[in-house]
Formats: sequence, structure tokens, C-alpha cells
Amino acid sequence: MSEISGQFTNSKHRLCVRVYYEDTDFSGYVYHSNYLKFCERARSDMMRLLGVDQNSMFVGDNRMFIVIRRMVCEFLTPARFDDVLTVESTPTLAKGARMEMSQRVLRGDTVLFTAEVLAVILDANGRPKRAPADLAEKLQAATKPVP
Amino acid sequence: MSEISGQFTNSKHRLCVRVYYEDTDFSGYVYHSNYLKFCERARSDMMRLLGVDQNSMFVGDNRMFIVIRRMVCEFLTPARFDDVLTVESTPTLAKGARMEMSQRVLRGDTVLFTAEVLAVILDANGRPKRAPADLAEKLQAATKPVP
Amino acid sequence: MSEISGQFTNSKHRLCVRVYYEDTDFSGYVYHSNYLKFCERARSDMMRLLGVDQNSMFVGDNRMFIVIRRMVCEFLTPARFDDVLTVESTPTLAKGARMEMSQRVLRGDTVLFTAEVLAVILDANGRPKRAPADLAEKLQAATKPVP
Amino acid sequence: MSEISGQFTNSKHRLCVRVYYEDTDFSGYVYHSNYLKFCERARSDMMRLLGVDQNSMFVGDNRMFIVIRRMVCEFLTPARFDDVLTVESTPTLAKGARMEMSQRVLRGDTVLFTAEVLAVILDANGRPKRAPADLAEKLQAATKPVP
Repeated sequence: MSEISGQFTNSKHRLCVRVYYEDTDFSGYVYHSNYLKFCERARSDMMRLLGVDQNSMFVGDNRMFIVIRRMVCEFLTPARFDDVLTVESTPTLAKGARMEMSQRVLRGDTVLFTAEVLAVILDANGRPKRAPADLAEKLQAATKPVP
Repeated sequence: MSEISGQFTNSKHRLCVRVYYEDTDFSGYVYHSNYLKFCERARSDMMRLLGVDQNSMFVGDNRMFIVIRRMVCEFLTPARFDDVLTVESTPTLAKGARMEMSQRVLRGDTVLFTAEVLAVILDANGRPKRAPADLAEKLQAATKPVP
Repeated sequence: MSEISGQFTNSKHRLCVRVYYEDTDFSGYVYHSNYLKFCERARSDMMRLLGVDQNSMFVGDNRMFIVIRRMVCEFLTPARFDDVLTVESTPTLAKGARMEMSQRVLRGDTVLFTAEVLAVILDANGRPKRAPADLAEKLQAATKPVP
Repeated sequence: MSEISGQFTNSKHRLCVRVYYEDTDFSGYVYHSNYLKFCERARSDMMRLLGVDQNSMFVGDNRMFIVIRRMVCEFLTPARFDDVLTVESTPTLAKGARMEMSQRVLRGDTVLFTAEVLAVILDANGRPKRAPADLAEKLQAATKPVP
């Protein structure tokens, strides 16, 4: 199952995604917002590999949500039907309620899309919430120090 | 707001939808499963016009879900970017936990897509549940007797 | 790459798909029309494994399109976020311009969704077109005789 | 048809969109990348109101594509099922091959999402292409001078 969930090595997560009909539009290329879907798949896989269960996070009195607060997206080269793409995700910060991450979508060595992502953890009332100790530990272990 | 929610006249609901980039694929036409989205928009608008609040149905001890159990879909003529389509919905049965409906997507007088839809009401445990009296009344009032 | 394209054995194609945020809706389950997307991914992977290049089919004077003409869909049990599903596709007929196929989406041994699919090959003018000899041969080789 | 295509007044385009099942995810809110879809619908409607026919732009020797090159997205407050949202689009620059625009998604007076958008016009070979005179004129007329 490693292929379907991606792999985590050296503070970088890599996931392969195939481009299907559903991802394209009548221009012949991938519809722009679908790169954000590819990136979200990679983040969900990465969280699972870190031991975070997003199904259970949403339930109970201590439930919390990880939401995207900001994305700076560059659309550099378009992908096409049948391409196999790699989504690379590099966590760069995990502090308090904030998580930051750099994500890139590549076809071979060509970078098609980049995103600088800021996510925040919210409590049941929608207020920022510090990551619980065990989650914080997992996220910090995954975070690559920016040199 | 009548245009954005469609209109209900003579047991038939009509909603206009525009075809955008997101609806098409690289064949140049609307991606097949998006006709089901158009039909779902029409059903949601129809339910709202009948006075059914799907947000509140999902909450509390008596919560219930209306789910699609069966759809027989015919894809007859493809729609294209920028087309304005009409979704016509005709309820044909509301009995116990079951609702049946005929839906068509048209461009002008040309029928592009048809669906025979069976929906069922489920309780919180996923078991079929008779429509509560007030909902049953609304649904039956909307149902056109099949001649 | 076998996992990402599925596998073809004994006239049955199997593809694993993960359920992500994008596939779910606020009911908590997979949005109904997304099972059709999962089935289309499996058909595209199956065509590629049979040696059919859908990118090149669309180009030139002899271009053709494979389109869905009819789908009978049964939604039996809902899938949830993070589920790993299997899409099973069994071609049952390939004759002239027509192809028929049975598809099922399973979670473990539980069947969640079934579809009886009729696809047709169209020429550049949207008229039915007999499969060219090499395509017909590939499709017939993949077709399981209905006992 | 003004409601379904939005309205252009004082260099600002406004389009109403309804939130349907398809737009939400199992968190209960609108899936993040769908705000980009709402913004693209507004841009397409705006282009049509300016007299730009995106269907014909894609055909012939002088064909061109308008593609998104960069989006800075802020996700401020989540939208929910059944909300009626307004997408406000304000063109801010049209020069050579570049177009810039500010977009906001609101529910009533509450700003839910903002995007700073850079689009570029590409020729058939994917190279930046100056807007033809008639298109440039339309775009500049729509552009609000930044004070």
C-alpha cells in the first residue's frame, strides 16, 4: 500500500497521482483548482503516515479541525490527461496552532505547480487551538528546519 | 431569487444551470458524472422550495438522511462550455421511505440527459425510515400522479 | 506502477482508490456521483493496460471518442473518508460500436456500488463508429463471455 | 438571465452562487478548492459580459488561452450547505499579455475568501501573447484604476 499512500523520507512526502478525465477541462489541460486537490490528497496521506486520524479528530468534546488559512499558488506548466504526477510536500513549521508547508506538483523533473500553505488547527468553536502535545510532537518531527 | 433556486409549477421543477470550465473535460464536452451534479442541485432546490431544511434534518436524535439508492442514467447528447441548461424534475412517487423522480437536462428543446431516480429516507442508523407526516405531506403534494 | 494503474487478471480489472476530503460531502459520506468518477478512473486504466491511447484517439481525421451512453447505478452502502476502495471492472460485450461492462466498488468484501455500463464509440461527427480492427481485437480479448 | 450571469457595475462584477452538496466535504463546510471554482465561474461570466467568446478563442490559427498564472488565496470564514454567496470580481490591470484581478466571496457582508489573481494570455504554443486590440480595449475598459 505504499504507493497509494505516498512515502515519507527525509522530511519530504511524495505521492503519485494519475490525471484522469475528471481532472481536465475543455482547454485540454488540468483544471486549475485540481492541483489544490492533488495537494490535499498528499497532506491527508502525510497526516495518516504521521499517525493522525482525521476521522476521529472531528468527533467528541475535544474535536478539532485542520483548515487551510492561506495558499500562495503558482501555476507554471499545465498537466494533461494520463500524466503521472508527483506531489512533494515539505513541512516547514509546526508551532502552536499553525502549520506551514511547501508543496510542489511535478511531472518528471518539471515543476508544474507550487503552493506555500498555511494551515491552522481550530477548536469546535472555530477558534485557533494549540496542537495537543502528541500531535505537536508528530508534526515537529516531520518539520524540516529551514536552512 | 427565483432564478437561482429554480421554479416549481404544475408538479415540475425547473432550474437553469450554466456550464463552466469545471464541468467540462478534455473531450471538449461536459464530463459525464456532472449531469448527476446538475440533477442534485435541482433536487436540493426543489426540497427547499417544498419547505424542507436539509441542514436541520441532519442534526439531533431524530436526524435522517435522504440518499440516492438507484439512478438509471441515459446520456443522449453532450453539453458544451457556456451552454445554459434546464434541469426538469418531476416527482412521481412518495410513499413510506421511498421517493421517485424523473429528471431531464435540456438545452432548449433538446434532451441531453435523463435519469430515473429512487431516493430513500434513512434514520441515524442507516435504516429506512418512513417520511414524518409533515414531510410526507409536502412530498405527496409535489408528486404528479402517473397517468 | 501496477498499484496506480490497477491490474488486469482473468478478464477482471481491479483498481484501488483512496477516499479523500474532495470525495465526501457534508452528510459525512462519499458524494453519490463520485462513484462514477472512481469507475471512470478504472475504465481509463483498463483501456491503457489494453494498449489504447485515449490521448491520440482524439486527434486527426480518424479521431473517435468513447462515450458513456447509459449507466444503471445502484448505491448500496456509503463509503467514508480514508476508506480504501476497490473498483472491479468486468467487460461483458464488445461488438461494432458498443462496449458493455459491469463495475462494482467494494470496501473489503462489502459491495458499495454497482453500475451496468454501456459505452459507444463515436466518430468526429458524433455518429456511432465500429471499433477499428486492432481496438476490436483488444476489447474482445478482454471480454468475459457471460455464462 | 442577469442573475445567472451576474452583473457588471462600476468596474465590479457580482455573481450569486448557491452552495450545494457537491461543494461541501465531511467537515461540514465548503471544500477549500471550491472557492476557486466559484471565482472561475465569475471570471467566465465577466468575460462573456465583456463580449469575449471563450469557445471561439480556442479554435483556429490565432487561437489563444487565458490561463491562471498565480493566485494568492485567503480562506477566512467557511461557507456551509445552502448558503447563497456573492462573488465580487474587480479587474485591476490589463496590459500586454497580463490581467490582474481581485476577487472576494461573501455571505452577506462577511468576507469568506479573497484571491489576488494573475492571468496571462498564451498563444497556441503556450507563449505569452499580447491581447489583440479589441480584447485589450474591452479589458481596459473594465479595469478599475488602482487609486
